[in-house]
Amino acid sequence: MSDEQQYLMLPGPTPVPGNVLRALSTPMINHRGPQFKELIEEVTEGVKKVYQTQNHVVTFPSAGTGAMEAAVVNFISPGDRVLSVSIGVFGDRFAKIARAFGAEVEQIEFPWGEAADAEAVGARLAEDRNHEIKVILVTHNETSTGVVNDIKAIRQAAEDHPALLIVDAVSSLGAIEVKTDEWNLDVVVSGSQKAFMIPPGLSFLAISPRALQVAEKCTSSRYYWDIKSAVEYLEKGQTPYTPAISLYYGLRESLRMMQAEGMEKTFARHALYRDMVRGGIQAMGLRLLADDKVASSSLTAVVAPENIGANRIRSHIQENFDVIMAGGQQKLNDIIFRIGHLGHVRCLDLLAVLAALEITLVELGMDIELGRGVKRAQEILAKGR
Amino acid sequence: MSDEQQYLMLPGPTPVPGNVLRALSTPMINHRGPQFKELIEEVTEGVKKVYQTQNHVVTFPSAGTGAMEAAVVNFISPGDRVLSVSIGVFGDRFAKIARAFGAEVEQIEFPWGEAADAEAVGARLAEDRNHEIKVILVTHNETSTGVVNDIKAIRQAAEDHPALLIVDAVSSLGAIEVKTDEWNLDVVVSGSQKAFMIPPGLSFLAISPRALQVAEKCTSSRYYWDIKSAVEYLEKGQTPYTPAISLYYGLRESLRMMQAEGMEKTFARHALYRDMVRGGIQAMGLRLLADDKVASSSLTAVVAPENIGANRIRSHIQENFDVIMAGGQQKLNDIIFRIGHLGHVRCLDLLAVLAALEITLVELGMDIELGRGVKRAQEILAKGR
Repeated sequence: MSDEQQYLMLPGPTPVPGNVLRALSTPMINHRGPQFKELIEEVTEGVKKVYQTQNHVVTFPSAGTGAMEAAVVNFISPGDRVLSVSIGVFGDRFAKIARAFGAEVEQIEFPWGEAADAEAVGARLAEDRNHEIKVILVTHNETSTGVVNDIKAIRQAAEDHPALLIVDAVSSLGAIEVKTDEWNLDVVVSGSQKAFMIPPGLSFLAISPRALQVAEKCTSSRYYWDIKSAVEYLEKGQTPYTPAISLYYGLRESLRMMQAEGMEKTFARHALYRDMVRGGIQAMGLRLLADDKVASSSLTAVVAPENIGANRIRSHIQENFDVIMAGGQQKLNDIIFRIGHLGHVRCLDLLAVLAALEITLVELGMDIELGRGVKRAQEILAKGR
Repeated sequence: MSDEQQYLMLPGPTPVPGNVLRALSTPMINHRGPQFKELIEEVTEGVKKVYQTQNHVVTFPSAGTGAMEAAVVNFISPGDRVLSVSIGVFGDRFAKIARAFGAEVEQIEFPWGEAADAEAVGARLAEDRNHEIKVILVTHNETSTGVVNDIKAIRQAAEDHPALLIVDAVSSLGAIEVKTDEWNLDVVVSGSQKAFMIPPGLSFLAISPRALQVAEKCTSSRYYWDIKSAVEYLEKGQTPYTPAISLYYGLRESLRMMQAEGMEKTFARHALYRDMVRGGIQAMGLRLLADDKVASSSLTAVVAPENIGANRIRSHIQENFDVIMAGGQQKLNDIIFRIGHLGHVRCLDLLAVLAALEITLVELGMDIELGRGVKRAQEILAKGR
């Protein structure tokens, strides 16, 4: 089957809607002219709505990891003590980037598949009476395990500790609610290729006024990621260097789609997808990595039967049904597979994918009844839509 | 007139061919799967041919400025002495990035509009008997002035000085010959939105084995731009973090076009464009900023009549004829305008643009005969094609 007909069930890149794909083909314009000014202004306003923020939001031509690096080099000075809350690969990555730039990183880790305990984070901060901790790094949606952290609870647990709260919302923003202003989040990082439904290559950073002040005094070396420069140029409707113009055209289109659907409905749709997939998987007799209470609306991590292994399931379903699922990363390799269900996913696609998974499991020797998982997901869909 | 029908005569972004625009609309794939492996391998081989190199070539999801930053943070350690050869804005930018990351930058500057004197560079290096200078930064094609530096001569003038030679070829590679291996260039930086005829958002770095060794010991903090990681992932047909997939599809298409034309012909075509524009401009009685000997095939900087000013010319031609030209930067603002003629530019477009410029000049009060510039360019085209 051709590329065009794959079921791309990754936690990113996610499927790009046809009208967005076509918008990518818009001819180039002058990035220092009035047309680009209009474009970046519309897009920035749209992204701010998704962030639920009045803060500055800047865009970088980069992967989401680039915006994570920007969140480190603008707000953390070498030698600063950083409390990194990690529940998986991307939490570890944030800590790793901070260490690479000279931060003294103290990591609070929770078992992969579980969420961070906000109280434990609060207790650690309460101990820090001299306010040596300057920054808290935390992942909102951990893409490696399909677990969502309760950012609001973590913010509350921090009480009046003055550390900046920096949140990686790359795989949540737009699929799972993030109330940047109401939750008082200082820096929130996101990327284009997840819930924003456009190809990879654009990243976003929302920056509170307090964080901007910290950036003024931050001694980390930076040029490309300098947010002061990005904010200044944005006021002129420009970027400090050439922007990824085609992705702005795509984003304009996808933001219009998101606005037309309405954010509440978008979040509810993603939660329904989560419930359909989880219900279907459980009805097949497979185990879910994450508990219901902390399960992500963006993706679901499934524990493969030990005697089959996750990677055989992924190969089989890809070769036979063109369903592309993600594997487990690092210590979860071959143990879990991950089904992405964020962005431009249709509910019937999920039924199709569950059906393919059932056939795959039977063909790989598992004794299950075809249709049970699909039926469960259908029931959840019929009830929830 | 719509975006679609502009004459985009910028030194980047340049017009994107229709088939390349359409390739951008290819649906997403797994960036850890076999399809992306095939894609990045084909594209990397193609880019290497343009670079005329057997060295590693890595790609970053970023603007060209990002690859300049990568060239600094991988090969220059804080405190390293750097000799920066600058003939304009982008030469200054390279020095500025190096300074931002703690290098001790010594700048050799030449007047804007002139090329670097290779002998002067050689003389400075010869004085450096203790080899304190670790890196030489130089711009191949200075986009702010339309001047090309003789990189081969600078390399030869350096003789056996061990400093790494790092070249910014963002606005030359693919339009003006760069013989990376034959000229023994350690690091060569380029970007997608110039001669490669695709939108901004991808950048390239060619790295010699000697430069790779320097990177091993380089103490600059880095994560996103780490070339060691980029080279390791490339060996698996991947990138360390999510790549800008759609731009790879576009690049595959544009590289095939470049290969079909043949690099010799591509360079000759750009040189012909240069001669047409310069001939036409001179026949209108306007002055060129750069001398014939150092004039760029990528863009031409034109000195505007003082009593009119460059920016009035740009506004008038844009409003009346949808011709988008670049202005002068910094101290050349309102003094020059710049006509980009690299990438997917058709020779007849240049005649049209020159015709529009003549009418513009007359309408702004200059006493010239319509058609003289166009005729001169026609003659050069008729003879040169």
